[in-house]
Amino acid sequence: MKKEVAIEKPLKLIDRSEIALVGSNGDNGYPNIKAMLKMRNEGLRKVWFSTNTSSMRVAQFAKDPRACIYFVNSSEYEGLMLVGGIAIHQDAETKRLLWKEGFERYYPLGVNDPDYCVLCFTSKWANYYHELENATFDVE
Amino acid sequence: MKKEVAIEKPLKLIDRSEIALVGSNGDNGYPNIKAMLKMRNEGLRKVWFSTNTSSMRVAQFAKDPRACIYFVNSSEYEGLMLVGGIAIHQDAETKRLLWKEGFERYYPLGVNDPDYCVLCFTSKWANYYHELENATFDVE
Repeated sequence: MKKEVAIEKPLKLIDRSEIALVGSNGDNGYPNIKAMLKMRNEGLRKVWFSTNTSSMRVAQFAKDPRACIYFVNSSEYEGLMLVGGIAIHQDAETKRLLWKEGFERYYPLGVNDPDYCVLCFTSKWANYYHELENATFDVE
Repeated sequence: MKKEVAIEKPLKLIDRSEIALVGSNGDNGYPNIKAMLKMRNEGLRKVWFSTNTSSMRVAQFAKDPRACIYFVNSSEYEGLMLVGGIAIHQDAETKRLLWKEGFERYYPLGVNDPDYCVLCFTSKWANYYHELENATFDVE
């Protein structure tokens, strides 16, 4: 498979996805999954999420940053897995950058609510498939 | 939350889902995710998938059966995570039970193709959420 094919189609999939499935290492060595709203992405390299500081996912990533995120278009048998690490950001600048109207529902104290934080996922490698096509590649 | 509420809504979600997101323990301690067609389920307790014996997922579950599976209805902010174990079945009877028309595309030798096998997931516990409602419970 040519590199431009491997990058272009997964980029389109991530760009049009509203949610990502986020994989973490849960209790007793079991993988965990949660759907999260994709707030922003920088190609395949970085993906941002916002969540409650008190949430289970934040506790898990504070303990073990190893993660994967997954985008799926089930009607076309198309999927993209990105494997990498998640960092927890609680600084005012990053929180302001990701803030959206309506977030008050989840974070009543607004952008400075200590229970609002940002997760930034950074990819190391990717696996993309579409029907019987399948490619694994590093993300730079 | 009453138990009937906790069971009924996740049951409806799993029953109408065509795909599940399957979480496994991948290389170097990273969680992995893959969308798979849900072939059959027995309430929240058991979920069956069919896949290639030579696939990455089968290699991972042969090494470490710890798994989670996830069902999502993103338009309603609704999700169900089941955490448990996956067993690999290669006996003729189970393979015949799960066989569907059209599988020849993936398993050219038919129901006895050694590259066709069945994965059976058994739940231990569940987490279900719908908007701001959230419940964790054991699956018996």
